[in-house]
Amino acid sequence: MKKNLGAKDILFPTPVLIVGTYDKDGTPNAMNVAWGGLCSSKPPAIAISIRTERRTYLNILEKNAFTVNIASEAVMAEADYFGVVSGNQVKKFDHIDLSAVKANYVDAPYIAELPLALECKVMQVIKVGQHMHVIGEIVNVIADETVLDEKGRVDVVKLKAIGYDPAGNHYIATSEIVGDAFSVGLPLAEKAKNDI
Amino acid sequence: MKKNLGAKDILFPTPVLIVGTYDKDGTPNAMNVAWGGLCSSKPPAIAISIRTERRTYLNILEKNAFTVNIASEAVMAEADYFGVVSGNQVKKFDHIDLSAVKANYVDAPYIAELPLALECKVMQVIKVGQHMHVIGEIVNVIADETVLDEKGRVDVVKLKAIGYDPAGNHYIATSEIVGDAFSVGLPLAEKAKNDI
Repeated sequence: MKKNLGAKDILFPTPVLIVGTYDKDGTPNAMNVAWGGLCSSKPPAIAISIRTERRTYLNILEKNAFTVNIASEAVMAEADYFGVVSGNQVKKFDHIDLSAVKANYVDAPYIAELPLALECKVMQVIKVGQHMHVIGEIVNVIADETVLDEKGRVDVVKLKAIGYDPAGNHYIATSEIVGDAFSVGLPLAEKAKNDI
Repeated sequence: MKKNLGAKDILFPTPVLIVGTYDKDGTPNAMNVAWGGLCSSKPPAIAISIRTERRTYLNILEKNAFTVNIASEAVMAEADYFGVVSGNQVKKFDHIDLSAVKANYVDAPYIAELPLALECKVMQVIKVGQHMHVIGEIVNVIADETVLDEKGRVDVVKLKAIGYDPAGNHYIATSEIVGDAFSVGLPLAEKAKNDI
């Protein structure tokens, strides 16, 4: 039996993106963003949505740059902190034991204690409803060695990234592999081919 | 120790979005999209990125509508099928035991066997690199009763949505709750407030 829930901003899973920026004086800030996702492969690009009143939005306009740091189970409380404290009221990094480090290719800080960071240069900004939709080219990915496999690729099991559940406001685990993409559907694809 | 991985299209987690459309003759199609995410709360909106050569992109332009169906563990093989078969070559729904049902508010089909569907009307389409970035207003959410809690909200544990791991090409489980958002960071926020 199906139910209409009406117009709702839900999706499963959504990511937990800690967006790092500098203000014009070089003070680092970070915020917790769940409205975002990859949006291009060539060049690699990510889209994040932020309200205009956020300090992060002003910083992005100032520097044309940001980082996207992936939150993991080990730093879940720190990731949540960036979502409950406002950068307009406090300097968030002054009150937490995390290191904002200048990124290698863009004028924005990444957070050393988080396992993965995407360095982004602003490509486009468009308005979508109450949010500004910021599209950034991913010019480099900085990874902690501890989350890489023997081929140097990010290992989802080691990474232990968390996701966000927008219906119940939970953080969720995302490190249990349940199948192989472009693989578990091949028997069905084979059957379709034989049908023709 | 940190490593630079270069410019890569990776993010954790990404969703597994089965995008449902009709062509001009009313033939249903569906494709598997991992480049996407929510992008606005008021109105609720979602952004998905698709290449222009996809049948789905032409269908979206034709009808100004699409659905986003959430793939779950129970229908992982079917979700993968939609990613490995091309709608330009076969009528995907002719060869699989799934029901494409006309949505309630938009001219696009949802998939009855998938637990959750977002009905979307096109708001904007912009080009980002090789992809077209399609932004759709979510005008209704259709949920299977079996994935709702006693308050009628989507229950992430019952939903058992899968995510996609773009580094290792795996599907991942997303139904294990590991913390409460706007909650696990409150002690750190309290400490910051006391510091001032």
